[in-house]
Amino acid sequence: ASKDSERPSKVQKLHVYEINEGDRGSPAYLRLSQQPTNTLGDLVPFSNKLYHGNLEKRLGITAGLCVLIQHVPERNGDRYEAIYSFYFGDYGHISVQGPYLTYEETYLAVTGGSGIFEGVYGQVKLQQIVFPFKLFYTFELKGIPDLPKELLGTPIPPSPTAEPTPAAKAAEPHAALKNFTK
Amino acid sequence: ASKDSERPSKVQKLHVYEINEGDRGSPAYLRLSQQPTNTLGDLVPFSNKLYHGNLEKRLGITAGLCVLIQHVPERNGDRYEAIYSFYFGDYGHISVQGPYLTYEETYLAVTGGSGIFEGVYGQVKLQQIVFPFKLFYTFELKGIPDLPKELLGTPIPPSPTAEPTPAAKAAEPHAALKNFTK
Amino acid sequence: ASKDSERPSKVQKLHVYEINEGDRGSPAYLRLSQQPTNTLGDLVPFSNKLYHGNLEKRLGITAGLCVLIQHVPERNGDRYEAIYSFYFGDYGHISVQGPYLTYEETYLAVTGGSGIFEGVYGQVKLQQIVFPFKLFYTFELKGIPDLPKELLGTPIPPSPTAEPTPAAKAAEPHAALKNFTK
Repeated sequence: ASKDSERPSKVQKLHVYEINEGDRGSPAYLRLSQQPTNTLGDLVPFSNKLYHGNLEKRLGITAGLCVLIQHVPERNGDRYEAIYSFYFGDYGHISVQGPYLTYEETYLAVTGGSGIFEGVYGQVKLQQIVFPFKLFYTFELKGIPDLPKELLGTPIPPSPTAEPTPAAKAAEPHAALKNFTK
Repeated sequence: ASKDSERPSKVQKLHVYEINEGDRGSPAYLRLSQQPTNTLGDLVPFSNKLYHGNLEKRLGITAGLCVLIQHVPERNGDRYEAIYSFYFGDYGHISVQGPYLTYEETYLAVTGGSGIFEGVYGQVKLQQIVFPFKLFYTFELKGIPDLPKELLGTPIPPSPTAEPTPAAKAAEPHAALKNFTK
Repeated sequence: ASKDSERPSKVQKLHVYEINEGDRGSPAYLRLSQQPTNTLGDLVPFSNKLYHGNLEKRLGITAGLCVLIQHVPERNGDRYEAIYSFYFGDYGHISVQGPYLTYEETYLAVTGGSGIFEGVYGQVKLQQIVFPFKLFYTFELKGIPDLPKELLGTPIPPSPTAEPTPAAKAAEPHAALKNFTK
């Protein structure tokens, strides 16, 4: 019985926004293909800010690498292979890998985590709201204890006008995780 | 009991071929070491076509990154750290990480997946048939429901002459997964 | 019952040292940002030697990629997103992903493995001893059978003066894993 409770297989949803506020020098589009259009060979390290789905709390950052796989002219977009992590201050992190398409939503694999996310598995839905500045994620997490209350709650539905509260943007103590990742 | 059935630990084998048909601009060998021989510092983004082990069906693509770790002159080859995913159209994807040696078979870790592969774990054997154009993989998958029938079946034994059927190469509807990844 | 035993959730600790002895051309600091200070856009492929925590046995190597995320001037250091594997000769490998901060210890996710580490999950504590030459890791591994005895045992406490034995440095047969990864 203790084994089941150690690695629960129930699904816990977690909603977050990833927002590029233009102050992190991100993304770094490395045009290593040396081609005028996006081409296999290009690499895109990136790091954006991470907010609670209710946009009332700064959580931390995202950090990782997108590998340009192909330009998709008929969709006026690109396919990337994305390998990155979501950082939640003292709570730890979640690592993910999978497809990032600039023109439609995708699902990535949750490959592991640390802290309260140690042993996590599952998948995450990536929805792009304003390319490439605002994304909404719905995690379906398994294998971990109940999430802390401050990570739960109803998200603001994704829309181009959804914005973090001024307090969250300023990462005021009541509007940020403890030691939120900078 | 339901928990066991939700994440079965039985092994399911899945056989696929990865084939470079020369039409995807892959691999992009980025000689960032600026050395004449393959050297740590070189990076190799790639994306190839993925076929069923029976070579009768196009499944999708592979996509990811190889990190050149060392040239191995006594084996006339190279060691790479490989980080990539296998895409199966509407079925989802499997992410893997581990060693790719150009001179002998290796086992990589299955780190996660999406869709029917959500929650997957296990390992995969990589066998090189024709460097660097044709590879054969044997997945040992755990943690997921029974695979759909069209992914099962006896593979064609790996050999340099093994080729997808013309219908699979053309990705005709009866010879390709639904919405196979392009 | 057999299912539980197939994927045990008990924690097994594994202690290893990662040491850069300057003979592998590692790390390859790729200043792709083209900035004088470390900046998002820089990439750092690397591969170091891996020793048992008791420093009496050569195990293999590490291999992978660090993505520079940000320079942290107030800590006189850097944040990286690290994606790499630990190689243990014939025993197989462990893949990890997560934060590498040059100025404090971190926890990374264990995302999978091969061989005796097939199906592994958990996390690993990274402690830097001598930047960037000597690191100490404490793995907390789950999901795998009991580790072989030669990987167990009390580690030498991490300190700047801790060094592998001469026999381990020379990878003499009694001081190295079978077919230790070179």
